[in-house]
Amino acid sequence: MTKPIHILNGPNLNLLGTREPGIYGRETLNDIKARCEAEAAGLGLDCVFRQSNHEGVLVEWIHEARADASVLLINPAAYGHTSVALHDALKALDLPIIEIHLSQPMARESFRHHSYVSLVADGVISGFGALGYVLGIKAAAEIIANGAA
Amino acid sequence: MTKPIHILNGPNLNLLGTREPGIYGRETLNDIKARCEAEAAGLGLDCVFRQSNHEGVLVEWIHEARADASVLLINPAAYGHTSVALHDALKALDLPIIEIHLSQPMARESFRHHSYVSLVADGVISGFGALGYVLGIKAAAEIIANGAA
Amino acid sequence: MTKPIHILNGPNLNLLGTREPGIYGRETLNDIKARCEAEAAGLGLDCVFRQSNHEGVLVEWIHEARADASVLLINPAAYGHTSVALHDALKALDLPIIEIHLSQPMARESFRHHSYVSLVADGVISGFGALGYVLGIKAAAEIIANGAA
Amino acid sequence: MTKPIHILNGPNLNLLGTREPGIYGRETLNDIKARCEAEAAGLGLDCVFRQSNHEGVLVEWIHEARADASVLLINPAAYGHTSVALHDALKALDLPIIEIHLSQPMARESFRHHSYVSLVADGVISGFGALGYVLGIKAAAEIIANGAA
Amino acid sequence: MTKPIHILNGPNLNLLGTREPGIYGRETLNDIKARCEAEAAGLGLDCVFRQSNHEGVLVEWIHEARADASVLLINPAAYGHTSVALHDALKALDLPIIEIHLSQPMARESFRHHSYVSLVADGVISGFGALGYVLGIKAAAEIIANGAA
Amino acid sequence: MTKPIHILNGPNLNLLGTREPGIYGRETLNDIKARCEAEAAGLGLDCVFRQSNHEGVLVEWIHEARADASVLLINPAAYGHTSVALHDALKALDLPIIEIHLSQPMARESFRHHSYVSLVADGVISGFGALGYVLGIKAAAEIIANGAA
Amino acid sequence: MTKPIHILNGPNLNLLGTREPGIYGRETLNDIKARCEAEAAGLGLDCVFRQSNHEGVLVEWIHEARADASVLLINPAAYGHTSVALHDALKALDLPIIEIHLSQPMARESFRHHSYVSLVADGVISGFGALGYVLGIKAAAEIIANGAA
Amino acid sequence: MTKPIHILNGPNLNLLGTREPGIYGRETLNDIKARCEAEAAGLGLDCVFRQSNHEGVLVEWIHEARADASVLLINPAAYGHTSVALHDALKALDLPIIEIHLSQPMARESFRHHSYVSLVADGVISGFGALGYVLGIKAAAEIIANGAA
Amino acid sequence: MTKPIHILNGPNLNLLGTREPGIYGRETLNDIKARCEAEAAGLGLDCVFRQSNHEGVLVEWIHEARADASVLLINPAAYGHTSVALHDALKALDLPIIEIHLSQPMARESFRHHSYVSLVADGVISGFGALGYVLGIKAAAEIIANGAA
Amino acid sequence: MTKPIHILNGPNLNLLGTREPGIYGRETLNDIKARCEAEAAGLGLDCVFRQSNHEGVLVEWIHEARADASVLLINPAAYGHTSVALHDALKALDLPIIEIHLSQPMARESFRHHSYVSLVADGVISGFGALGYVLGIKAAAEIIANGAA
Amino acid sequence: MTKPIHILNGPNLNLLGTREPGIYGRETLNDIKARCEAEAAGLGLDCVFRQSNHEGVLVEWIHEARADASVLLINPAAYGHTSVALHDALKALDLPIIEIHLSQPMARESFRHHSYVSLVADGVISGFGALGYVLGIKAAAEIIANGAA
Amino acid sequence: MTKPIHILNGPNLNLLGTREPGIYGRETLNDIKARCEAEAAGLGLDCVFRQSNHEGVLVEWIHEARADASVLLINPAAYGHTSVALHDALKALDLPIIEIHLSQPMARESFRHHSYVSLVADGVISGFGALGYVLGIKAAAEIIANGAA
Repeated sequence: MTKPIHILNGPNLNLLGTREPGIYGRETLNDIKARCEAEAAGLGLDCVFRQSNHEGVLVEWIHEARADASVLLINPAAYGHTSVALHDALKALDLPIIEIHLSQPMARESFRHHSYVSLVADGVISGFGALGYVLGIKAAAEIIANGAA
Repeated sequence: MTKPIHILNGPNLNLLGTREPGIYGRETLNDIKARCEAEAAGLGLDCVFRQSNHEGVLVEWIHEARADASVLLINPAAYGHTSVALHDALKALDLPIIEIHLSQPMARESFRHHSYVSLVADGVISGFGALGYVLGIKAAAEIIANGAA
Repeated sequence: MTKPIHILNGPNLNLLGTREPGIYGRETLNDIKARCEAEAAGLGLDCVFRQSNHEGVLVEWIHEARADASVLLINPAAYGHTSVALHDALKALDLPIIEIHLSQPMARESFRHHSYVSLVADGVISGFGALGYVLGIKAAAEIIANGAA
Repeated sequence: MTKPIHILNGPNLNLLGTREPGIYGRETLNDIKARCEAEAAGLGLDCVFRQSNHEGVLVEWIHEARADASVLLINPAAYGHTSVALHDALKALDLPIIEIHLSQPMARESFRHHSYVSLVADGVISGFGALGYVLGIKAAAEIIANGAA
Repeated sequence: MTKPIHILNGPNLNLLGTREPGIYGRETLNDIKARCEAEAAGLGLDCVFRQSNHEGVLVEWIHEARADASVLLINPAAYGHTSVALHDALKALDLPIIEIHLSQPMARESFRHHSYVSLVADGVISGFGALGYVLGIKAAAEIIANGAA
Repeated sequence: MTKPIHILNGPNLNLLGTREPGIYGRETLNDIKARCEAEAAGLGLDCVFRQSNHEGVLVEWIHEARADASVLLINPAAYGHTSVALHDALKALDLPIIEIHLSQPMARESFRHHSYVSLVADGVISGFGALGYVLGIKAAAEIIANGAA
Repeated sequence: MTKPIHILNGPNLNLLGTREPGIYGRETLNDIKARCEAEAAGLGLDCVFRQSNHEGVLVEWIHEARADASVLLINPAAYGHTSVALHDALKALDLPIIEIHLSQPMARESFRHHSYVSLVADGVISGFGALGYVLGIKAAAEIIANGAA
Repeated sequence: MTKPIHILNGPNLNLLGTREPGIYGRETLNDIKARCEAEAAGLGLDCVFRQSNHEGVLVEWIHEARADASVLLINPAAYGHTSVALHDALKALDLPIIEIHLSQPMARESFRHHSYVSLVADGVISGFGALGYVLGIKAAAEIIANGAA
Repeated sequence: MTKPIHILNGPNLNLLGTREPGIYGRETLNDIKARCEAEAAGLGLDCVFRQSNHEGVLVEWIHEARADASVLLINPAAYGHTSVALHDALKALDLPIIEIHLSQPMARESFRHHSYVSLVADGVISGFGALGYVLGIKAAAEIIANGAA
Repeated sequence: MTKPIHILNGPNLNLLGTREPGIYGRETLNDIKARCEAEAAGLGLDCVFRQSNHEGVLVEWIHEARADASVLLINPAAYGHTSVALHDALKALDLPIIEIHLSQPMARESFRHHSYVSLVADGVISGFGALGYVLGIKAAAEIIANGAA
Repeated sequence: MTKPIHILNGPNLNLLGTREPGIYGRETLNDIKARCEAEAAGLGLDCVFRQSNHEGVLVEWIHEARADASVLLINPAAYGHTSVALHDALKALDLPIIEIHLSQPMARESFRHHSYVSLVADGVISGFGALGYVLGIKAAAEIIANGAA
Repeated sequence: MTKPIHILNGPNLNLLGTREPGIYGRETLNDIKARCEAEAAGLGLDCVFRQSNHEGVLVEWIHEARADASVLLINPAAYGHTSVALHDALKALDLPIIEIHLSQPMARESFRHHSYVSLVADGVISGFGALGYVLGIKAAAEIIANGAA
């Protein structure tokens, strides 16, 4: 049986829907979680959806994914730009890694142009808001179907 | 009636399937075109699929899209890294713009980390090979359905 | 009734009074807390005074301030120089933000010259030691009195 | 008899009047052409006015100017920022070279601050919209009258 | 008897109240002078309040402060970003130095991020508009009271 | 009645005609003043023509232009490359600003490539020697005629 | 009696033995702990051996070392490259500090070349895998024997 | 039978003999073509000699070389410094690649120091004028004789 | 008869003897003037010795030296690091130029490593305190004797 | 029988004990040699201990080590920061390479932060003074015992 | 009679054939010497072929070439990247200078991209292994025949 | 009795009088030696005057100066720009150090702007050709007379 897709969300994403809606949209993180679960279910897949504001917790959830997940989706938010620890955790993960950003970082401040996660991600989807998660799950499903995961 | 999605492909993409398959995959550009047309048809949409090795031709196809397209998908390939002309053409385009890369540029040489196209793209999908085009069309369909295009 | 001023303190500030007194002074964080409470009380205001060595905890205290505070004073210490997560949390905060530094970072090592917090702070006070907190509270009181908070 | 002034226009300028009018004004390229021809005629001069989106075509038009023109006016648009080929073609041109920009590049994005054309241009006029072309022709007429061309 | 606080103001500050009020506020420099004098008087202190658009004049007023002042408050405005001469004059001043900025330079253009004055200032207060001067005088009073000046 | 055009000239321009004629030409500043006055008179306009070697004086002449001028022409010479004070004064000026350079700075030493004046100038004319002033006055006349000044 | 040596380990080191063994070796962190304890015991010393993925926890363990340790060995892993908080905590520690890296960071990606910990470490040992810890303990023992700790 | 050597020439090389002879020499491109054909014939080899000012055409000629050539000689001229498209086309070419420059780019302007072609060329010959082509053909002949092509 | 040597001194040098004596020595500027006059007299030369804190005044004194001086000695102090205006004035000066610094700028802060004056000075003497002026006058005398001035 | 450990010392290390003892300690190079020989003997190993101020001599001693040594210890001193020749010699050495620094270069001037030797060293030990050599020999012995040398 | 060609070889080239044969090939330096002598003899020329690991020796051999050589071929190896002394010696050499590299430095580490020798070399040949020397001698012969040497 | 002044000369200075006389003058090094000896004798001092092209030899001559010299004059030539070894040798020298350059490095190529020798020199004299040595000896004599040496 296929292991679930793990979907990790980084700092401040718990504010979604209230924080800078012009940039991040009006859906809450719970709305996105529901869309993800529906999308996954429609594709015959489970997903584990989590958010933390703590770099160390995200590192440890990535460690868990080593045994428990088929694909990792991660929206690292701010930690994508600053965390070598996340980078190292992901490098030790022998699974397909898909990085999601709600906004398009290359069109924003220069300190958002670099991502330590992108250095090790297999695929990146940015700028589509909540739709990006759905696209990520579709991609994951196809990768799983192809036996790459 | 919805205008077609325009899908533009930049230099060297006509070599797909033969050029560095470890990075770019084994599907030819015609294979990708067929997948795009099938995906679009399944979503009730048309698409116009073109490739050029000429920066000026790509600029002019973007100009055409101003009147003829609902959404622009563009895989600018090498010109994404060097062409301010493409950037300016896209900036004059009042349509949703989705940038596709077969590989994941942030995980390659540093001269691939910058994209003049990303500065004006609404969304970016990279690293999924041919699947990236399919995801882009799915995203376009949803954007069209939401009335944003 | 006016909500309290939230005063957040970042990593290593719990060592105050013992750590490099030539740079940071001899007052402990408790001494500063007492001065803040006295100053606020004298101005008819409450304050909530907290310290954490954990970036994620500080992010979440900033989230709390969205509903509970009238003004945010923050001495981000080392995280000011490295934390985009703090920056994003503060950007989502629709309150006056005052950044405090005990020392004057521009007169120290170059890695202390940049502050992600300064990018979103309304005002910055640095180099006055514990007195900086008192000035920050005076400023907050005036801002509250002017109805800007 | 005096040879004509050659006026070359780079990529995307065929969109003038429709593209970002806040930056580039509402006159079309044909309007500008008409103003140039009228201005030149009033000064007893001919002009050849051309636009291309193709770097190679612009290079070759500069080659043609070696034999056919008295002065070269060039609005290189995006290629000014990226084209060493244009630079080299202009360096081989033993004529007065006047660079025109509709907007003022130094007041825009940093990638517009550098111009390979400015390195070899005798004079530069920027920020005056279509009026810049008229000023360029006036300057060319004076240069021709002084025998420098 | 305590020497007066010297308050020096750099170029363009004579325009206050009319220049970019969104950034610098609507109070004139005379309004600020009056607030400073009132605040100082309330604390039993005198102040000398001056403005010049001339770098050399500011240098010489700093020289005068060596003998005549107890504390120096300086809003160097543009010269803070460019003047090594001011820096050197301040370095030769054996008094507490407080730097004031009406706006918050770190949140503005990159050429405002560096301050030669901050390299030698004891304390910096920025972003509070005219209130910053009042806070600076309060700080000066406390420093004087503590015998550090 | 139209206010005069103010034409300000920066440091060392009083040496014109004697200083590096290969770069700056053989006309003296008085020659240029005469050309400007003739050109303006021909267009039914007055002009005020001044030169100073003092940054502070130039700042104050820009302040005067706020009330007295219709358009500002400025050849900042060396101060264009180094003076944030001039930049700030110009930013506070609600008039069309035209920057003139006798030589073409982009074709000279790298420290001449940046101009704080260009960041706020509406138009820039460089490399035409004294003719640049005449072109600037023609441009000013057209801007005034169009009611933009 | 001599206080124990504190040995702190940063993020992802709990994965040792499974993560990129080509770079980090096949020994687990427990294996290393056992080697450290044996080595220390052989030298008549105790050691406290800890690992955390949380920057804040490491900061606090460094605070604890102020009272409880004779020497600090720290393998900061990823946080060495990014954490000013760790740097500040170590700077407040009046003990010999020995930095250990399993691999040799200078021979890896450029973002591993800088270490905020090295700025305050007394000695650094890198590239020896688990043996580096043993060498660090030998060094600590000699430092203790010499009375420097 | 050995396939011909393809010799590609980039922008502005059609001007050879007339453009900056002090740098590029007095031989025309036809003279060089004749020398190449003679040299190749003397070594029992054919050559195909082409020039284009169009980046896209050069890209496509490199594509043709994949099937038709034994060795590629390329003088990319200006496009060597700016074209990632050429780089990518060459990377997809499984033949020996020899880069020729008439002048010695490292002894000229800094924007000529980088070459995207050199990143993938097997050998580089620069500074010998037309003789460089002859040396390149001699090298190609030896490579072919050694069976490396 | 030989024209006098002009000796110009920049900002803050009027403080000499009181400002940072560890760096600049204990002699006052009047002491140095006296040493210069004595040294010059001993060599049969006159000297004009001046100091100003105003960039514009120094520019104008350099202008005066064009007609009145045989050699220019200049200690530009802080303006050496920031003033293109001084650089331009000196470039227009057809006399031997000798730059003096009391301290050795290369051994101090990085913003003192660059000198716009050094770019045009014939000789530089730094680090010898007041003795540097004497050496400069000896050098000037020899240059005058050799007929180079 | 095991080949000896070669221990090479770079420029100025012959001054040890007299040069900047605050940084480098008071032991002479002969003292260190004696400690190394004793440590090696205790581990049943020989060592060859040499010092040169000549880059070329060090290069040639590294060449000798190819045949004669089991492990190379090298304290390159200043040449570590500047010598690509040493780097290339070490790259051609198929032995374990251990780099020693008496002081901790990362805590000193920025020109000491880079080491061409570190790019090819297997392990680095810095900041332990003479003890670093002893640790290096212990490490070498273990590497030899493990059969890696 | 024609003076001989001097062929100088820099550090580590005495290891050729044994050092990193994948990059530098399997021929020894003696093999290359023999090829050079044969090639030169075939062209009626003598050559002097030398290698040193000492920068100073290479400098002095270049000095000798001033009187004794017709053309200088130099493979500076590592010293090409670091030696201003070699650069200065070559600048004082009034002979044709041909720089040879066995590998292609632009395709290797970034510290090999710069060459102080290339700044003064007339021609550069890189990436052809030992064949590069033969091409260099052919070029030298043609230069001598043309009377340029 | 006063120890002699040691005067060290770096690479290529043995060519003086023949190498680039426009930059370095026509006097030979022997001429300069004679001038130095005469100047020193006139001041009652001895001097030791040496030249080497070998970095290691210069390092060792600096070591000798520790015991044998009263003042060190050094013209490091190219090694000033590249040699940390010289820097370290000079740092270990407890004597006045005077750096001489014949030309004025700041007015030449950018790679001559940095000097590792200047970081530790007490005084620097550049641009005076052979006269610089004479000035250096005069300075040394005064320093010796003042008892600073």
